[in-house]
Amino acid sequence: MQNRLKEDLIRAGCLGRSASRRVETYAQLDARHGVTRPEGSAANKEIRDYAVARMREAGLRVSWDRVGNIFGLRPSTGGDTGTVMVGSHLDSVAGGGMFDGALGVFTALEAVSRLHDAGFENRRPIEVVAFTGEEGSAFRPTLLGSSVLSGALEAETALRKQDDAGRTLREVLTEVGYLGEKDRDLRGVDYYIEPHIEQGPVLAGEGISIGVVEAIAGVTWLTLSVTGEENHAGTTPMAARRDALVAAADIVSLVNREARQMVAQTGLPVVATVGKMEVFPGGINVVPGQVTLGIDIRSTDASAMSRLQQTVVAGIEAVAVQHGVSIDIDAPSVHAPQSLSAEVAAVIERAAGAAGIKSRRLSSGAVHDAQNLARQVKAGMLFVPSVAGISHAPLEWTHWEDVEHGAKVLTETLKILSGGVPEDKS
Amino acid sequence: MQNRLKEDLIRAGCLGRSASRRVETYAQLDARHGVTRPEGSAANKEIRDYAVARMREAGLRVSWDRVGNIFGLRPSTGGDTGTVMVGSHLDSVAGGGMFDGALGVFTALEAVSRLHDAGFENRRPIEVVAFTGEEGSAFRPTLLGSSVLSGALEAETALRKQDDAGRTLREVLTEVGYLGEKDRDLRGVDYYIEPHIEQGPVLAGEGISIGVVEAIAGVTWLTLSVTGEENHAGTTPMAARRDALVAAADIVSLVNREARQMVAQTGLPVVATVGKMEVFPGGINVVPGQVTLGIDIRSTDASAMSRLQQTVVAGIEAVAVQHGVSIDIDAPSVHAPQSLSAEVAAVIERAAGAAGIKSRRLSSGAVHDAQNLARQVKAGMLFVPSVAGISHAPLEWTHWEDVEHGAKVLTETLKILSGGVPEDKS
Repeated sequence: MQNRLKEDLIRAGCLGRSASRRVETYAQLDARHGVTRPEGSAANKEIRDYAVARMREAGLRVSWDRVGNIFGLRPSTGGDTGTVMVGSHLDSVAGGGMFDGALGVFTALEAVSRLHDAGFENRRPIEVVAFTGEEGSAFRPTLLGSSVLSGALEAETALRKQDDAGRTLREVLTEVGYLGEKDRDLRGVDYYIEPHIEQGPVLAGEGISIGVVEAIAGVTWLTLSVTGEENHAGTTPMAARRDALVAAADIVSLVNREARQMVAQTGLPVVATVGKMEVFPGGINVVPGQVTLGIDIRSTDASAMSRLQQTVVAGIEAVAVQHGVSIDIDAPSVHAPQSLSAEVAAVIERAAGAAGIKSRRLSSGAVHDAQNLARQVKAGMLFVPSVAGISHAPLEWTHWEDVEHGAKVLTETLKILSGGVPEDKS
Repeated sequence: MQNRLKEDLIRAGCLGRSASRRVETYAQLDARHGVTRPEGSAANKEIRDYAVARMREAGLRVSWDRVGNIFGLRPSTGGDTGTVMVGSHLDSVAGGGMFDGALGVFTALEAVSRLHDAGFENRRPIEVVAFTGEEGSAFRPTLLGSSVLSGALEAETALRKQDDAGRTLREVLTEVGYLGEKDRDLRGVDYYIEPHIEQGPVLAGEGISIGVVEAIAGVTWLTLSVTGEENHAGTTPMAARRDALVAAADIVSLVNREARQMVAQTGLPVVATVGKMEVFPGGINVVPGQVTLGIDIRSTDASAMSRLQQTVVAGIEAVAVQHGVSIDIDAPSVHAPQSLSAEVAAVIERAAGAAGIKSRRLSSGAVHDAQNLARQVKAGMLFVPSVAGISHAPLEWTHWEDVEHGAKVLTETLKILSGGVPEDKS
């Protein structure tokens, strides 16, 4: 692969890494030292500054909007309007990996540089983008910058959001120098392409470099509170207990069992997880009086997601009766599945074929800025493999040959979409 | 009942209560406002000062030892040696109730006062005691003061223990004025009686005022860590997961099921609880990579306790295999069951009979200072009912008629044990 993209990703991967050393190979990773680059951190400012400097080196016209989304414009050589936007995000979770987000921004920059180096004439403008606060690790909700760009969230509302230290997004962006003056929107943009690591095990498991994303899974979050009776663990006979944790354990088993069963019976891509659970009062010698849980249900199939939610809720009600506890379920938070553009998917597939690189269609279980953009423009995503499916963790890795395959396919995709490929003219 | 004891308990119950109001009836309790009186708190100093003042009013000779255990001596009227010690503790858990501990100290004081009022001549000395740090809410381990008195723990070691704020017991006792100069031990003491609330539902459920405690349950604590694989909840197919919480949920179910089964099959007083459980990383959208649990197993039957421990450990090993997770179990912490004195139990029973008050034998699932004393002297415990079995919680309550029955039976018990009852002389 060309060394420019590898060097960008390694340099970006050093920013916010808890032990500051270059990591160039999978073997050099250390499970103890992840990358932490939330909005407002010094490392986040450094990676923004680095990306802006690299955009300028590549001849792009750089700007940022009021919520700190960075844009690097390569104007059209004349001809078509309707920008092709391409990029991802630069922030990270706490203790995450070096490819999540950064790969998309720097691969986009690399692809545009290759077009430039090749003297390619793009009839549509191409704009590299780096979104603010995709991870939600400093400011909630997730996908903050793209929510504003796509009109789902007011810029003023976003700027008033506070991080855990009580700083507003406005304060943080002012401090790092990325509080822009103007709002941007998606008028004049026709396409959005997001290169990203898969963050799951499918591509790595099958030895395929390129994933063409057809849809982004919907997410349903159920948060619930199980209330039993707090009692002394030594003096309360088994028969006299209403143990909130014994009931909650049945809910964890139920969620796991029902999701597996639905996958087995229907083959639909459904997952369900209890990732969050807190036990009160939490003393080893106290029968738990209360347990709170968070359940995450996802599918690209809206009806499967809703059916699994109904099954789980019915099961929870049965658990309450069986254990004599009361269970309150908050109003569910539901984000519907989002289909991506079939046209863009076909173009990515064609680009991969032209480059002689294997690809497959898949869906994304994780949320991405692309789902916001997809409501306004033709949007697509291009996945590269995550070793062992690991992400949001220090051991996240993508092999350099896969990174290069991603850059090649993205370059071809941009050629096609920006309308200057010879076969379109012939 | 005589108003003196009720007034003592109400006044003591105001100290350390988070909303400062007298609580005289069950209906006045408020689940939000418990009693918090750990060693080193202002409220703990206040209740110590109040108890000392009341001991002096009752004509007792007051002293305290190096770890702040308070003693109030009523010398013998001549005759037998071999002190009868009687009392409990004045500290409390955070957000606890007003009877746990305080009831024992003030009932002891009341009983001695009644002997005095009646002109009773005790041939053995009687000594009211209030132990330091029974609850372990400020300084670990629990039963701190009685561990030192019974020789299980060095006074110097205890004085170096630190609370969560990093203050040593020595500093705290100096500050509240209860760092005594002399070590005490149990030479010269023949008996120990501890009046206490049951903290369980048995007496209240059967409408019996007096519990005669035959044994204090042993306690086994198992702490374990379940390690699976942390993954993205959206991108990791169900079949590719090693979810630490799904495995931990099976352990919670297993502990509960095996304990219930042993009770059903053997009738032995066994209980087992998972009261503590923490999930890492704990994000709603992350498949849990690690869960830590604390298991509490108790029985007055040492072999039942050990058998249940073995069954649970074998079950945990099967869970590890089934879910493909690894489970580390720390070396178990085991405190053997402690039998109390059969002689003392018979005396309490006889005293209850003489007073025309119903009693029943039972065992204690909770730990008490009496188990330390029982290794050195003839020790017994006298329980009064806890409404609904609730304790270590703001709604802890004991009806005043039961408090009075406890005082009557304790007074009779002291008459018999201190050797001056008419029938012994006749």
